[in-house]
Amino acid sequence: MLMRMSSLFLRTLRDDPVDAEVDSHKLLVRAGYIRRAAPGIYTWLPLGLRVLAKVEQIVREEMAAAGAQEIHFPALLPREPYEATGRWSEYGPNLFRLQDRRENDYLLAPTHEEMFTLVVKDLYSSYKDLPLALYQIQTKYRDEARPRAGLLRGREFIMKDAYTFDIDEEAHAAAYQRQRDAYERVFSRLGLPYVIVAATSGAMGGSRSEEFLVPCEVGEDTFVRSPGGYAANVEAVTTPAPPARAWQDLPPASVEQTPDTPTIASLVDVANERFPRPDRPWTAADTLKNVVLAVTAPTGERETIVVGLPGDRDVDLKRLEAALAPAEVEAAGPDDFARHPELVKGYIGPGVIGPNGAPRDAEGQGGAVRYLLDPRVVDGTAWITGADRADHHVFGLVAGRDFTADGTIDVAQVREGDAAPDGSGPLELARGIEMGHVFDLGTKYSQALGLTVLDANGKARVVHMGSYGIGVSRAVAALAEIYHDDAGLTWPVAVAPAQVHIVATGKDETVFAAAEDLARSAQEAGLEVLLDDRRKVSPGVKFADAELLGMPVVVVIGRGLASGVIEVRERASGDRREVPVAQALGAVQESVAAAG
Amino acid sequence: MLMRMSSLFLRTLRDDPVDAEVDSHKLLVRAGYIRRAAPGIYTWLPLGLRVLAKVEQIVREEMAAAGAQEIHFPALLPREPYEATGRWSEYGPNLFRLQDRRENDYLLAPTHEEMFTLVVKDLYSSYKDLPLALYQIQTKYRDEARPRAGLLRGREFIMKDAYTFDIDEEAHAAAYQRQRDAYERVFSRLGLPYVIVAATSGAMGGSRSEEFLVPCEVGEDTFVRSPGGYAANVEAVTTPAPPARAWQDLPPASVEQTPDTPTIASLVDVANERFPRPDRPWTAADTLKNVVLAVTAPTGERETIVVGLPGDRDVDLKRLEAALAPAEVEAAGPDDFARHPELVKGYIGPGVIGPNGAPRDAEGQGGAVRYLLDPRVVDGTAWITGADRADHHVFGLVAGRDFTADGTIDVAQVREGDAAPDGSGPLELARGIEMGHVFDLGTKYSQALGLTVLDANGKARVVHMGSYGIGVSRAVAALAEIYHDDAGLTWPVAVAPAQVHIVATGKDETVFAAAEDLARSAQEAGLEVLLDDRRKVSPGVKFADAELLGMPVVVVIGRGLASGVIEVRERASGDRREVPVAQALGAVQESVAAAG
Repeated sequence: MLMRMSSLFLRTLRDDPVDAEVDSHKLLVRAGYIRRAAPGIYTWLPLGLRVLAKVEQIVREEMAAAGAQEIHFPALLPREPYEATGRWSEYGPNLFRLQDRRENDYLLAPTHEEMFTLVVKDLYSSYKDLPLALYQIQTKYRDEARPRAGLLRGREFIMKDAYTFDIDEEAHAAAYQRQRDAYERVFSRLGLPYVIVAATSGAMGGSRSEEFLVPCEVGEDTFVRSPGGYAANVEAVTTPAPPARAWQDLPPASVEQTPDTPTIASLVDVANERFPRPDRPWTAADTLKNVVLAVTAPTGERETIVVGLPGDRDVDLKRLEAALAPAEVEAAGPDDFARHPELVKGYIGPGVIGPNGAPRDAEGQGGAVRYLLDPRVVDGTAWITGADRADHHVFGLVAGRDFTADGTIDVAQVREGDAAPDGSGPLELARGIEMGHVFDLGTKYSQALGLTVLDANGKARVVHMGSYGIGVSRAVAALAEIYHDDAGLTWPVAVAPAQVHIVATGKDETVFAAAEDLARSAQEAGLEVLLDDRRKVSPGVKFADAELLGMPVVVVIGRGLASGVIEVRERASGDRREVPVAQALGAVQESVAAAG
Repeated sequence: MLMRMSSLFLRTLRDDPVDAEVDSHKLLVRAGYIRRAAPGIYTWLPLGLRVLAKVEQIVREEMAAAGAQEIHFPALLPREPYEATGRWSEYGPNLFRLQDRRENDYLLAPTHEEMFTLVVKDLYSSYKDLPLALYQIQTKYRDEARPRAGLLRGREFIMKDAYTFDIDEEAHAAAYQRQRDAYERVFSRLGLPYVIVAATSGAMGGSRSEEFLVPCEVGEDTFVRSPGGYAANVEAVTTPAPPARAWQDLPPASVEQTPDTPTIASLVDVANERFPRPDRPWTAADTLKNVVLAVTAPTGERETIVVGLPGDRDVDLKRLEAALAPAEVEAAGPDDFARHPELVKGYIGPGVIGPNGAPRDAEGQGGAVRYLLDPRVVDGTAWITGADRADHHVFGLVAGRDFTADGTIDVAQVREGDAAPDGSGPLELARGIEMGHVFDLGTKYSQALGLTVLDANGKARVVHMGSYGIGVSRAVAALAEIYHDDAGLTWPVAVAPAQVHIVATGKDETVFAAAEDLARSAQEAGLEVLLDDRRKVSPGVKFADAELLGMPVVVVIGRGLASGVIEVRERASGDRREVPVAQALGAVQESVAAAG
């Protein structure tokens, strides 16, 4: 494979595109790998498409090695199967919906669980047909509210999605492990560093769920890890409830007038000033903060809820969203408060004392809105909290004794230094790009769509499924994010559009002839070559382009040729060496092997 | 590559699917290559996807050989570029349209002229950048009114579309030829017989246009060819106008009462009975038939037109549609007639005499509806035709003398035996599947979207474009249509999912071991192998499956093994030979080479 810069469909840009925030996006556009067609929708130019094809090929090989068979579903699908599983509405505005000329409803598939389930139901009927693993590499659509970061979060993107079908949970566990192993091989071969973290399964259903994250500052996922090896997506971190305490010796709660204390900080100040505690000062952790939130179900129904948590923590909206998926959540707005006059902004409590000094709800069950508590708020803990009455707080309100809730919800912010739930030490926080997700779907889809097989006794058994995704186009962006420096891209050999970039400089035709010779012999030796054979372009521009484009090995042929030498550079390390022209091919091969 | 029937995701069907009309559709479904997901929308199962991938690979190799560079556009595109060229509305109901969550208009692209034009405009600016050839292999969408014949006319399908960009017409001609040559190589390698026919360019604009048709009864395209080498899509056949005649000696026209003659046949009978001609009887060719049609523009505006043509021919609606594209056409309905009371059904003439005996239009220009004439109706020809008055016809009405029209339109049916327009002999009619289309776009898109480059004098020049399509998924169906027999598919080696199908029969484990050995050594020798290693399936079922699936070479290992022989069959020819087991691999390789 030999590409010539003189004819390659490419224009490099010196300036970052105005809409690009992250390095991978800037560089992939500047280096002419992709172009934006619409928000979150990209065109692949020749070099970008080559990287994409290499990623796909590695994925294909490892899927085959894991025994998965490739098939290919349409992207345009009828509504019915997605209606059967509830996802037609659950996806809410993230789903691209359309009608055909007969006014039948269609969608652009965001994932294909339904179709995989139905095709297996169509073809298979016996336990003898299992185990089965199928996959596709296919274009997906999601109408993201905020498409961002180029290929990292697009609205049209390429995914590999695999599904396993097994007779029972035990067989599923083996299939899951096989896919998980394949994922480790894929990301190793791609050269993508990864962390496997426990994850929630979101709108997908199922139980066991792990994500492969590429640790990276621009990643949208926050994850935690402990020195003892615990690792989880922040949405999946669980907070162990401390043991409940006895409340027999605790003093009764007292309502106090606390004017102008609508914030936790002002409340703590007033508490320390007017109601000091003998042993140590009050802190935000002694207060019970009650956060009012609006939860919108996929049907559009909006509910107001109150989450009670220690005042030194905020609600993490992403954790909340994961906990309440497929609903969407946001902070309550004026309309929500207007519908609930019993919620006195700045002075909201667990609802045991209403705006007029009476309980918000005689049953003490949280009143008209659902009241959910952080797991730390166990029975017997005493709190300073709102009295549900302007300018009043209640001191020493004891959970279990003075108030209860409608349930617990584990959605408080996770903080650096929090204890890992498995006791493996303090948590460290980091960000990552979600590159893969493996999870146990259980029987959610097979149940909903009637995928059963007959077992050895002729009895119908609901098939146990697993789901396994890799963001294929996102991997190209993640690679660019990991492999670049100030001058440009620095592709690993496995995914570079070409392994060698030969740059001919100057005006001497013997230089161009030598470059051409080397390009041809490299090509014959099985290397993929990009040859800069442009005649009226300065060496400076050519070198800058070579750095920007990022082939692993760059060969410069120029003035040195007169004295019989060329230069071989390794793009990532910057190592350079002069090599006699007669040994050029060997040196290139060596450098490619070293870079790979 | 080794696939095992024991685990391959496949179920063959004994019965044809109820919705299948053509052999390729029936067989591809029965043999488990594809499955319907929605009308005109298909899922590719493992064997089908392998054929598709092979077709794609051949296309890619020949595109590269023709100097075309691969890129990849999104399928989901914003409205604006299609609005700029008018195609947003021109496509009418064939376009899948949708809105995103911000209510911006999008479409699922049916073709990508606009995007190719814009990306070149984005990257290039100088004549030195040209010539340029770009292509993609991509999923396209068209909301066909009548999706049919499986993959032959789908609503989601895969196309290769290429575009060339040149500085002028001469350079374009060279690019066109290069693509045309590549197409010949593609179809030859695929094993698809083809005819290159002159074509119309439909809604695409441009001038020179040729189609690659696979001659085949189930094809939707009718084409003609002459012994002298003329070949054209029936829509593109032109009818040379005969020379005009002098009308000085012709008698004046006379209106006659002709009750109950609303059809051409009844009119001819009455004419011969009541107004016999001395030299020879009247025939339908002496009458001028006036056909009322409704033409609907993409905007939805509906116009009534009348086409006048010799009474022995009908209007060919496909030729009419091609002539009036992008408008849609149909026979006029009661509403159209109601709007035009001057059109007296059964007695419509050129409008020189109206329903009350007065001219329909004093100017004689066809009246309120457009009147278009077949090219055969030249000045000086005399006709029996309607008098625009119930139960009356006019005899000896002379074109040019007694009536004129608003223009000519060449949309009469083309008939077997008609003369080729280039004088190369009588036309033969045949049907074909449109597999490829190469055409000169001229400057239609570059003009509309402002794609210019600076020439050597620094002057802006509008780029000359060409467009080149291949129906990639349709090619799979065309191959199945050409390569099958009563028992099943008979793939050519170049596109078969595997070259060899090894069938182990019986219950003897040594047979299965020998089959396994042969499969492995064939695989090591670089062959793609399908191994029927199923244990509880009868030889009859296995043989039937092997015939249905259609790998080019079938090896049967069974009872003969005891005496040291196996059987090698060539699927297409049915040739069989016994081969000593020690020579099995060599024999298989020979047969594969022979079949290829």
